[in-house]
Amino acid sequence: MNNNLPTYADVVDAAEKLSGIAVQTPLLRNAQLDALVGMPVYVKAEPLQQTGSFKIRGAYNRICRLTAEERKRGVVAFSSGNHAQGVARAAKLLGVEAIIVMPEDSPQIKIDGVRRDGAEIVFYDRFNQSREEIAATIAQDKGSIVVPSYDDFYVMSGQGTAGLEIVNQYPDPALPQALVCCVGGGGLISGISLAVHEHWADTRIYGAEPQDFDDHARSLQSGQRETNSSDARSICDALLSPSPGELTFAVNRQHLTGIGCVSDEEVKAAVRFAFLALKVVCEPGGAAALAALMAGKIPLSGTDPVVVVLTGGNVDPARFSEILMSAAQI
Amino acid sequence: MNNNLPTYADVVDAAEKLSGIAVQTPLLRNAQLDALVGMPVYVKAEPLQQTGSFKIRGAYNRICRLTAEERKRGVVAFSSGNHAQGVARAAKLLGVEAIIVMPEDSPQIKIDGVRRDGAEIVFYDRFNQSREEIAATIAQDKGSIVVPSYDDFYVMSGQGTAGLEIVNQYPDPALPQALVCCVGGGGLISGISLAVHEHWADTRIYGAEPQDFDDHARSLQSGQRETNSSDARSICDALLSPSPGELTFAVNRQHLTGIGCVSDEEVKAAVRFAFLALKVVCEPGGAAALAALMAGKIPLSGTDPVVVVLTGGNVDPARFSEILMSAAQI
Repeated sequence: MNNNLPTYADVVDAAEKLSGIAVQTPLLRNAQLDALVGMPVYVKAEPLQQTGSFKIRGAYNRICRLTAEERKRGVVAFSSGNHAQGVARAAKLLGVEAIIVMPEDSPQIKIDGVRRDGAEIVFYDRFNQSREEIAATIAQDKGSIVVPSYDDFYVMSGQGTAGLEIVNQYPDPALPQALVCCVGGGGLISGISLAVHEHWADTRIYGAEPQDFDDHARSLQSGQRETNSSDARSICDALLSPSPGELTFAVNRQHLTGIGCVSDEEVKAAVRFAFLALKVVCEPGGAAALAALMAGKIPLSGTDPVVVVLTGGNVDPARFSEILMSAAQI
Repeated sequence: MNNNLPTYADVVDAAEKLSGIAVQTPLLRNAQLDALVGMPVYVKAEPLQQTGSFKIRGAYNRICRLTAEERKRGVVAFSSGNHAQGVARAAKLLGVEAIIVMPEDSPQIKIDGVRRDGAEIVFYDRFNQSREEIAATIAQDKGSIVVPSYDDFYVMSGQGTAGLEIVNQYPDPALPQALVCCVGGGGLISGISLAVHEHWADTRIYGAEPQDFDDHARSLQSGQRETNSSDARSICDALLSPSPGELTFAVNRQHLTGIGCVSDEEVKAAVRFAFLALKVVCEPGGAAALAALMAGKIPLSGTDPVVVVLTGGNVDPARFSEILMSAAQI
C-alpha cells in the first residue's frame, strides 16, 4: 500500500499506463443542454468507456503495479458493480485472477459483465453483512490482494486520467467556471481535481450526491468524515458509499467548493434527458452530476462554460424503461 | 443544382465547411461486440452527432452553398425526421428560414427537434400523399430552395465527411476488410464510399436495408434502380425511401459489394445490444447496419477488422422501452 496522497504527476503517470487500455471518451456538447443551463456545457461521456464506466481507469492502474508474485495471488474487490467490472476487465487484461464481492441486489447487467470477464463472484446481503469483512477473509485465506474501490493512491490517480483528458480535449477559449462530478467514495472527483486544478486553478469543482447519501456535503462543512445513515436509500446504486475515504477526503477537502444533492426524481429526469438529447445511456448514479446541474443545485454565474461528467451506463433494461416512462419531462 | 457526381475532393471540401459545425463523433470499440463478431469491430457513433444523426453533415454542406439571394428565399425539405432536424439546425445556424414536410406519423422526438430549431412543419399522410408534390408546391409558391434528403451533390459529399473521419480516426494497423452502413436513399453510404475507397481500396463496402425495403439490393443485382412495394412496412422509419437516388445509385453501383437485409426482430436485437454493451442510444434505422453484422448477413472472413456505422438515435421513449423489453437477448 502507498498511503501518500497522489499528486498531478501521479495522474500523468497513470495516463501512460492506461494508454491503449482506457478509451479516450468524447467530450460532447449539445445545443439543447446549453439552452437549458444557459451556458456552454461540455459533457465527459464515461459510459462509453470500456465496461461502461470510468472504473477501469483506477482498477487497471492499481493492478498493473502489482509485482509478479502478487499477481499470482490474484485480486479481490468489493463493489456494487462498476468497480467490479473494472477490476474484472483489468485483471483479465493483465492475466490475474479476480474475486468480486457484490451485493446480491446488484443490477443484473453488472453481474453479467463481471462474469463475462471471467471473475468469480461472492454475493452478500448489502444490509446485513460487511463486504469489507468478507473481502478481508478472502484476502487472508487466499492471499489475494485487495483492490479498493476508491481509497487508494493508484485508484485515485487512475481515475484522474479522465480529468486529464477533459483538460486536453477542452476546445473553448473561455475556461470552465465549474466542473461537476458525482461522488460516491470520492475517488473519481479527487483524481479529476488533481488534473483539473493543475491546469485551471480558478475552475470551481462541485460534487453531486444522492440526497440521503450526502456524507461528502456534511463532511466538507464539518471538516471531518461524516457517515450516512444505514437507513438511507437511493436509486443511485453506484453511489452508496458509507462515508468519504480517508485519502479521498484529504484531497477533496482541498479542492471541492461544494456539493449539489439530488433526489431520485431529479436523477431520473437527467437519465431521460441524456437518452433524448445526448443519446448516451446513463445509469442513475452516472447521471447524478447532470441532475445536479439541470436541477439548479450548482451555483453558476455569467456565461462561462461548465463541464459535467457522466460516469456510467450499466443499467438493466427494465429499470431504464421504467425511468424513461416515469421521469419528469424536461 | 449540380448534377455531377461528387468525388473524393468534394468530400474534403465539405469537411472544411463542416469544421467546427459537425461533431467529430467517436469511433468506439467494445470487447463484447468483438467477441460476438469474431474480429475487431470499430463503431462510428453518429447518434452522438448534433441533432442525433449524421444528417446535419449533408444539410449544412448544401445550405451553406446557397447564394445570399437564395438564402433569403428560405429552404424546404421533406423527411421522416432526421434530415428534417439536420436541415432545421443547419438553417438556424446559417440564418435561413426552413419549412419541413414531415409524415404525420413521424416519431414525436423528431417533430420536437425540428420545432426546437424554429422550422415550420407541414404534415402529410405518408401513404396517401406525395411529399415531393407538397414540397414542390411550397417551392413554387414561396420560392424556397429544396434541400433533397439524399440525391444531391452537396448532400452526398457532406455525408461523406463521416467516412473521412473514420479513415482519420482508425487506429488499427490491419485495415478493415469491410465497412457496413445502412441504406435509405443511399446518400450516406455513397459519400462514405468516396472517402473510404480513396484511402482503403480493398475494403469491401456493404449496405444494410430493412428486408421489405431492399431496393438497393435488387438494384445492384439488376443494374437498374428498382422500387419498393408501397405495401412494405418496417420499424426503421429512417430507411423507408422508395428507390435508390439517381446520383446515389451511380456512385453506389461502383462501390458497394452487396447488401445485408434485416428483419424488424434483428434490428430490435441490435438496438438492445447497443444499449447494453455500447451505451449508445440507437433508433431502429440507426442500428440496421449493426443488425446486419450481428445477424451474420455480411460476408466476412479471417480476422481483419470491420467498421460499422450507427447513424441515428432519435427514438421515442415508449418505442425504445418496448424494444428493450421485447427484443431477443444477444
